[in-house]
Amino acid sequence: MHIHAFAAREPGAALHPFDYEPRKLGPYDVDIEVINCGVCHSDVHLIDDDWDVSRYPLVPGHEIVGTVAATGDKVKRLSLGQRVGVGWQSGSCLRCEWCLNGYENLCRNKVLTCVNRYGGFADFVRTDSRFAFAIPDSLDSADAAPLLCAGVTVYAPMRRFGLRPHHCVGVVGIGGLGHIAVQFAHAIGCDVTAFSTSPEKKDDAADFGADQFVNSRNAKEMRETAWTLDFILSTATVALPWSVYMEALRPNGQLTIVSRLSSQGNMGMVEVPAPVLVAGQKSISGTVTGGRDVMQEMLAFAARHHIVAGSEVFPYENVNDAVQRVRNHKAHYRVVLQM
Amino acid sequence: MHIHAFAAREPGAALHPFDYEPRKLGPYDVDIEVINCGVCHSDVHLIDDDWDVSRYPLVPGHEIVGTVAATGDKVKRLSLGQRVGVGWQSGSCLRCEWCLNGYENLCRNKVLTCVNRYGGFADFVRTDSRFAFAIPDSLDSADAAPLLCAGVTVYAPMRRFGLRPHHCVGVVGIGGLGHIAVQFAHAIGCDVTAFSTSPEKKDDAADFGADQFVNSRNAKEMRETAWTLDFILSTATVALPWSVYMEALRPNGQLTIVSRLSSQGNMGMVEVPAPVLVAGQKSISGTVTGGRDVMQEMLAFAARHHIVAGSEVFPYENVNDAVQRVRNHKAHYRVVLQM
Repeated sequence: MHIHAFAAREPGAALHPFDYEPRKLGPYDVDIEVINCGVCHSDVHLIDDDWDVSRYPLVPGHEIVGTVAATGDKVKRLSLGQRVGVGWQSGSCLRCEWCLNGYENLCRNKVLTCVNRYGGFADFVRTDSRFAFAIPDSLDSADAAPLLCAGVTVYAPMRRFGLRPHHCVGVVGIGGLGHIAVQFAHAIGCDVTAFSTSPEKKDDAADFGADQFVNSRNAKEMRETAWTLDFILSTATVALPWSVYMEALRPNGQLTIVSRLSSQGNMGMVEVPAPVLVAGQKSISGTVTGGRDVMQEMLAFAARHHIVAGSEVFPYENVNDAVQRVRNHKAHYRVVLQM
Repeated sequence: MHIHAFAAREPGAALHPFDYEPRKLGPYDVDIEVINCGVCHSDVHLIDDDWDVSRYPLVPGHEIVGTVAATGDKVKRLSLGQRVGVGWQSGSCLRCEWCLNGYENLCRNKVLTCVNRYGGFADFVRTDSRFAFAIPDSLDSADAAPLLCAGVTVYAPMRRFGLRPHHCVGVVGIGGLGHIAVQFAHAIGCDVTAFSTSPEKKDDAADFGADQFVNSRNAKEMRETAWTLDFILSTATVALPWSVYMEALRPNGQLTIVSRLSSQGNMGMVEVPAPVLVAGQKSISGTVTGGRDVMQEMLAFAARHHIVAGSEVFPYENVNDAVQRVRNHKAHYRVVLQM
């Protein structure tokens, strides 16, 4: 079998066709014939070697939706022709305490879909079936693709911290992650405040379900958020005025950071005045994608509540245009490749 | 009625006898004839006006145990002669969402026992019965007094964050708060690691129930704690090497700060590298005393598990020696006045 992919040959390079022979089909492996693959900002970071983990040729792509084209001997959960998705993670030890507790995302031996592996910018991927997830019928493939990374990244902390309908939620950054976070928080029944440095996103934020919009460059608007929020989910990739956001929390409030960090958008140190933490019993935390159970739950929840990424679809042959659009932060709000 | 108290007349002053007429006995008030009153480091901060909230003459004392000597018309929960305790807080609005949810400690209108009020360095206190708590019979009065502030301060976050027997817990600072925290964590069934800058406290820490002892000035010992703890309770009043403690947490771990802040021991900004928060899904938070329900629960739990403060008892007339001992951090581990 030959897989026809697009790869970068060196950091920052344009993608060019790249054929490779996949590993032998293991007992738990499946081949997936790709229908769509999202272009996530993490793919750009990998192409550009921002995280110092990239190996070349590098085939990006970790928001994969396709149909099962072959199954290993031991694959029982998936069947030929079934539509499935693969996200940022495509393996783990399945034995450690984190895996056993549904936190495969915290496994020390986790396998990432396009780090030291070839990803989904390709006609096929051969991957561990145990990290391939059935896509609910009602979700369109292009709409579902970004949920597999961006979706689970914002949904998992809402689940972990027990977000409930009476909570007032802030979403910081109305971009690829934030526009999905607003939809989830709205669907959970929360009062949602969108924070953005781009006032022109106000109408979009309302369409996604935001009840309030705050221009985060406006100091007065920011001050007026003091003591209004129970939960803040920050998708920003740069350092925030942490103190101001911590003041925006009500007592017992939680701010969680979901962003991956990049050398370009370095959040560096999170700095919070200790008295603010203590007096209001506030928390600040981080979160990184989600485990398998929460992935399945997120897909089912998204299907039930018609939550979809706002996606711009590019044909595979225009992959470099697609990557450039994400690199330049021009996407509204995700970019998805279509075979 | 005249109450015979000890008061500071100005910041940092020695305490001298001070008589005053209490407010009229309100329908929910009780008079408490004081048996013991703890000397907390917060009393020293108030005497010294470290927090800029002190009014003089200042009668310290907010770890009060005594017997009910008079009751207002509407007091049904307490009866004459009953032994009760009063802690840092002695009133709140009882109507706001925080009060209604057992977080009286977060009420914006909370009343503090010796801020703008006269505290427990006195023969009597007149106070709101709804913040006076029955002391379990099995607890000695002198032993129980420090539980009313130090005890609830360390127990409340264990309760709020759901500390359970399988958790590995770090207690930072083996002093007035920490030595009680170790006992609670041990009684809950946890594996407990004590962190102290004073290696001579190792045996004491073991007596309190610590399974491990780390000299926090020893960089090698500190490094070896990496990824070992689920929960860290910091009682330190100075800035910590936050990153090192955050590394000591296992994934999904929580570090909570229970200290009050002082101008002398200013923790300033809590600084944590964002990648450490994100990659391990770790949290850092603060906590401030506890509500009424958790106070009662803490007292019952302490009685059941024979948790008592290590207290040095001073007669009331030696109040200045007692205060000086606390001011100089010489107490092992609490100081309690005895009428």
